[in-house]
Amino acid sequence: MAEARAALEMEIVEGSHELFRRVADWQREGAKVGFVPTMGALHEGHLALVRRASELTDKVIVSVFVNPTQFGPNEDFDKYPRDPQQDAEKLQPAGCDLLFLPEIATIYPEGHCTFVDVEGVSDGFEGDQRPGHFRGVATVVSQLFNLVQPDVAVFGEKDAQQVAVVRRLVRDLHVPVKIEALATVREDDGLALSSRNAYLSTEDRQAATVLYRALNAAQKVIEAGERSADTVRAILAEVLASESRLIVDYADVVDAESFKPVEYLDGRIVIPVAGRLAATRLLDNLQIDMENL
Amino acid sequence: MAEARAALEMEIVEGSHELFRRVADWQREGAKVGFVPTMGALHEGHLALVRRASELTDKVIVSVFVNPTQFGPNEDFDKYPRDPQQDAEKLQPAGCDLLFLPEIATIYPEGHCTFVDVEGVSDGFEGDQRPGHFRGVATVVSQLFNLVQPDVAVFGEKDAQQVAVVRRLVRDLHVPVKIEALATVREDDGLALSSRNAYLSTEDRQAATVLYRALNAAQKVIEAGERSADTVRAILAEVLASESRLIVDYADVVDAESFKPVEYLDGRIVIPVAGRLAATRLLDNLQIDMENL
Repeated sequence: MAEARAALEMEIVEGSHELFRRVADWQREGAKVGFVPTMGALHEGHLALVRRASELTDKVIVSVFVNPTQFGPNEDFDKYPRDPQQDAEKLQPAGCDLLFLPEIATIYPEGHCTFVDVEGVSDGFEGDQRPGHFRGVATVVSQLFNLVQPDVAVFGEKDAQQVAVVRRLVRDLHVPVKIEALATVREDDGLALSSRNAYLSTEDRQAATVLYRALNAAQKVIEAGERSADTVRAILAEVLASESRLIVDYADVVDAESFKPVEYLDGRIVIPVAGRLAATRLLDNLQIDMENL
Repeated sequence: MAEARAALEMEIVEGSHELFRRVADWQREGAKVGFVPTMGALHEGHLALVRRASELTDKVIVSVFVNPTQFGPNEDFDKYPRDPQQDAEKLQPAGCDLLFLPEIATIYPEGHCTFVDVEGVSDGFEGDQRPGHFRGVATVVSQLFNLVQPDVAVFGEKDAQQVAVVRRLVRDLHVPVKIEALATVREDDGLALSSRNAYLSTEDRQAATVLYRALNAAQKVIEAGERSADTVRAILAEVLASESRLIVDYADVVDAESFKPVEYLDGRIVIPVAGRLAATRLLDNLQIDMENL
């Protein structure tokens, strides 16, 4: 009985009206609402975000929505892993109170033609690799924030440029939500958890650690006192080049807020690296607050 | 004393934090919040919106903000009429509870680079005449809705395409606000009230009624049974051409929701007309629900 009741505790909601009603009830009770937007295929990285949200707020909503507008025409929208049943089973013990599982037509009503652009921060890196990607992200995040009306939303630092885009969007449009970003969760060998890791062959899985190794090499020289961004770039390039299976997309040193490349390491910086192993894109990054080093 | 107290009833707020606090108080009390966004230089048309908002809700917020991003580089941003003192005096008796008078830097924080685009509905008509105008409108409306968090927002039908853009934006991004649009308020001779009428010379002021006369002629033939949009367009063109001082920007028959030209009069239609008298742009429109005709 206890088990059956526990299994019922997490609601699954597909429609926006039902979601609105539930959130309105919670707001009336004075409950703080936490939100974790995801595309499903949940791993420990996502669950860490959900646990953090449940520490910070009274009610946690997780959305699972594979958002078509953030995929390019030749990307993996169709084959992106989907398993809502398994996602639901993982979410309940992590502290999720409501799983929002909308249809595409719920998020994008007929005739949808409104888009949100965060200029500047969206340029370069993932913005170059995936034209239109951040427009899709900023649009769906705006939509989901309006639907869920969270007090706090939790994102993973693994997608550092996405976090920078969302923070800029929230600030620029005065969205009444606090953004919390959480450190990347890794496998024992350092590979950043990602739903796309499931695509990797055994050999590529081994090669994939090169991103983490490059970031580690960069961290070591910075901790030893290196402050020239170009020297750090050279070290990243050298380590990444040591893995012949990897096609490097970028490896750089940028300002954490603007995502613009820097010359000198100062303030809050991000070192984003990305590449491809066969058809699978992998990204990772290192975030350093130089003032706390 | 009563007068002094009455004069204090309407608060004037410049900062976003103070606005947030006030709205949060009202929400806690269960008050419904109505909102009328304006650029000031208030006339009876604006005041009708405020009165309507105060009929529909418990607390009414009016913003006066001349939004730079909705003006083109060669438009009248600098000379747009500004008189916040007089605006405040008009708003209190109309039922405004809070006048929001933000600085530009409050709405557009340093480094602002996030914009909202409503495609399709923004094309043509004012979108062609004023490139970037609706991007500025959609952006500032999104910002103001996030700051004010209104239950109902009231707009004037005079800017019919703007209303279509805002309705589409609200629907597409799931903004939790009800949009109410109010019929245009007119001078005795039919001229639609507009803050820009103040720019007109005496001669141009007389000529300005030609927009209303064109719409009246169109209405007459439609009420008599005309259903061909091209016939209506020809009548509009004929009446507008009779006023040699006017340079016509457009005169058309469009679907009220999509703002796309129609061939046959059916459903909800808008007949938008616009032109220039010297440097002053004037617009007007007629809205007809063909099913209620």
